Amino acid sequence: MSARLIVDARAATMTGAAPYGLVEGAAIAIEGDRIAWVGPFNHLPRYFAGWPRQSVEGRLVTPGLIDCHTHLVHGGNRAREFEMRLQGASYEDIARAGGGILSTVTATREASEDELVALALPRLDALIAEGVTTVEIKSGYGLTIADETKMLEAARRLGEERAVRVRTTYLAAHAVPPEYASRPHAYLDDVVLAGLDDAESRGLADAVDGFCEGIAFSPDQIARVFDKAALLGLPVKLHAEQLSNLGGAALAASYNALSADHLEYLDETGVDAMARTGTVAVLLPGAFYTLREAQLPPVDLLRKAGVPIALATDCNPGSSPMTSILLVLNMAATLFRLTPEEALAGVTREAAKALGLEREAGTIEAGKRADLAIWDVEEPAELAYRIGFNPLHQRIFGGNA
Amino acid sequence: MSARLIVDARAATMTGAAPYGLVEGAAIAIEGDRIAWVGPFNHLPRYFAGWPRQSVEGRLVTPGLIDCHTHLVHGGNRAREFEMRLQGASYEDIARAGGGILSTVTATREASEDELVALALPRLDALIAEGVTTVEIKSGYGLTIADETKMLEAARRLGEERAVRVRTTYLAAHAVPPEYASRPHAYLDDVVLAGLDDAESRGLADAVDGFCEGIAFSPDQIARVFDKAALLGLPVKLHAEQLSNLGGAALAASYNALSADHLEYLDETGVDAMARTGTVAVLLPGAFYTLREAQLPPVDLLRKAGVPIALATDCNPGSSPMTSILLVLNMAATLFRLTPEEALAGVTREAAKALGLEREAGTIEAGKRADLAIWDVEEPAELAYRIGFNPLHQRIFGGNA
Ligand SMILES: [Zn+2]
Ligand SMILES: [Zn+2]
Repeated sequence: MSARLIVDARAATMTGAAPYGLVEGAAIAIEGDRIAWVGPFNHLPRYFAGWPRQSVEGRLVTPGLIDCHTHLVHGGNRAREFEMRLQGASYEDIARAGGGILSTVTATREASEDELVALALPRLDALIAEGVTTVEIKSGYGLTIADETKMLEAARRLGEERAVRVRTTYLAAHAVPPEYASRPHAYLDDVVLAGLDDAESRGLADAVDGFCEGIAFSPDQIARVFDKAALLGLPVKLHAEQLSNLGGAALAASYNALSADHLEYLDETGVDAMARTGTVAVLLPGAFYTLREAQLPPVDLLRKAGVPIALATDCNPGSSPMTSILLVLNMAATLFRLTPEEALAGVTREAAKALGLEREAGTIEAGKRADLAIWDVEEPAELAYRIGFNPLHQRIFGGNA
Repeated sequence: MSARLIVDARAATMTGAAPYGLVEGAAIAIEGDRIAWVGPFNHLPRYFAGWPRQSVEGRLVTPGLIDCHTHLVHGGNRAREFEMRLQGASYEDIARAGGGILSTVTATREASEDELVALALPRLDALIAEGVTTVEIKSGYGLTIADETKMLEAARRLGEERAVRVRTTYLAAHAVPPEYASRPHAYLDDVVLAGLDDAESRGLADAVDGFCEGIAFSPDQIARVFDKAALLGLPVKLHAEQLSNLGGAALAASYNALSADHLEYLDETGVDAMARTGTVAVLLPGAFYTLREAQLPPVDLLRKAGVPIALATDCNPGSSPMTSILLVLNMAATLFRLTPEEALAGVTREAAKALGLEREAGTIEAGKRADLAIWDVEEPAELAYRIGFNPLHQRIFGGNA
């Protein structure tokens, strides 16, 4: 098993009391795909002293970044719809021209699994180029059992094509497809619940998600999906309180959800429910920005209640066609007033929790996987400060550069 | 002289009546560093028929992008200040900790010309990687004759180090340095005006700029700088109406300015003055976004009056640490409601006008320089639609890849 030392690092371990968990003059011992030790070089145990060394020349080393909420796999794009809206078209005009989420559903159904993989790879490569080592990918544009399965298979394939950890999330409860218009319960029975059995039996779903909103599914309908997930032993997450407050976050918390996501309209009751169960708040500034939302998520309430705050691109072709995790840091700071340290925690330590990976990833600690990002910056705050600049020097995934 | 044909292009010429000046199935004839012909391949004049061909396989070809307002050359960064502000520090706290524009002045004065070049290169490379072929670079953080000169020399050097056209702008009237506190006229005499003579005589300044604002220079003070520029035959530009309305844009127009920049607080009188002289409105969404400005520039008034609208990164360490011209397109569409076509025109045709380069660059037309960008996109609107994704396939600068 390969063993080596990274030395001359400023290690933002994202653990412990110091800001960023910063260790100056750090050494990181890597054995196989694991972190064996991290600390100040002058405390290095004799056991590691003879291991081969790689100097990173004083550079900042952070945990590999984690994008914990994406719709990376999808057919088509919505650039024409974006353009029509800016030319003054109404939502009705756009729907009549075949736009909206259904255009993505149509394009995704038409695409083969190979095509979905090929279309997603440049988006995934953009994330990887910014130091991402773990990415969550949801289904939710197939809306038939076969097409949801195809999306999840494509997501798994992406994890084989590239040196990145992929976590899949089953999101058939994303929208009611036109063939089930005004029959949401029939859609839930025929597709969402039946498909979940199928996905679980094939090991295609690491978690189960839904979209709880007036334009999507009610809390009662989401509860049916979550009951089934509980039966199968799968953890849940929820798109909640994005456009209105339906109590989705509290519902999710009552199922011990890993996360509730978006949350612009979350109230104190919802915050408290999340705090009690340790449900992570995943904030998605790219969608907030693209939709020109005015309602800010309740960051202060989340802080006060001690709810972990994660951040993600929400990469999707409609409300967040975004493939830069570094820009998420900047937007979270600029738009949501997160500190650069909170922002970095949001795409490392807290994002790992949002995926149930807190024992594997998200911090630089002995025993965790050696997923690291090495940066050409002077200050950790630079990662959030710069806009559209990528200072990644090197990415290490499971110990391998 | 080298001669060749680009074929199988979707050419967004940015000229003529069609949206984007789009020519499908286009050929572009390049002779030396010039465009010799552009049009549908089946209209190709016999003269060009035998030239060697490069197929771009249906890709979109646009003019090379132009970033017409940057402060790319500077020492230091302001990440710590960004962090302090988000941790709740007041502007006073930050000033006491040595922050604000003066921290950049100090770092720029301390840096050698070589260091300024080395610091700017990664920023310039980020722009070039997104298809930028022309970049404007301002002085304005030296604020002594020697340090302003050093900045302009560094900017010229960048144009030699990389295959990119650099236009320099003399911006000593950016701020009053501490050694001239409350003596702005003495600063104008001793440094701004004397330094302008010097910069002009050494051919270091392609244009002259100022910052007209309560916290910087008054219209009367700017007029002194513009009078001198007129005497020397140098075109002018102005940072105007960014934080308040002092009538700076109308002042600039009265000097036939190439552009007035920022313009959030521009009123109808200013718009009309700009329209009469053809002064370009350079909008800077990165600064609008970073400062969380609520006042939108008067885009509808500018459109109605026929004022050309250009866009730029305003790359600077304080209010816009941004090095992505593609993100400028997205922000202009999302925040300012420009159409994707207006946004693309803003970093090509109109940006060329803002630099007095309209006979050289900014469109794909016979006689202009062969500065082109070739993109992996299906629709021109995708350039503005995506967030943090770079679909550049190839960049051609003066005919050379
Ligand atoms: Zn989502
Ligand atoms: Zn500026």
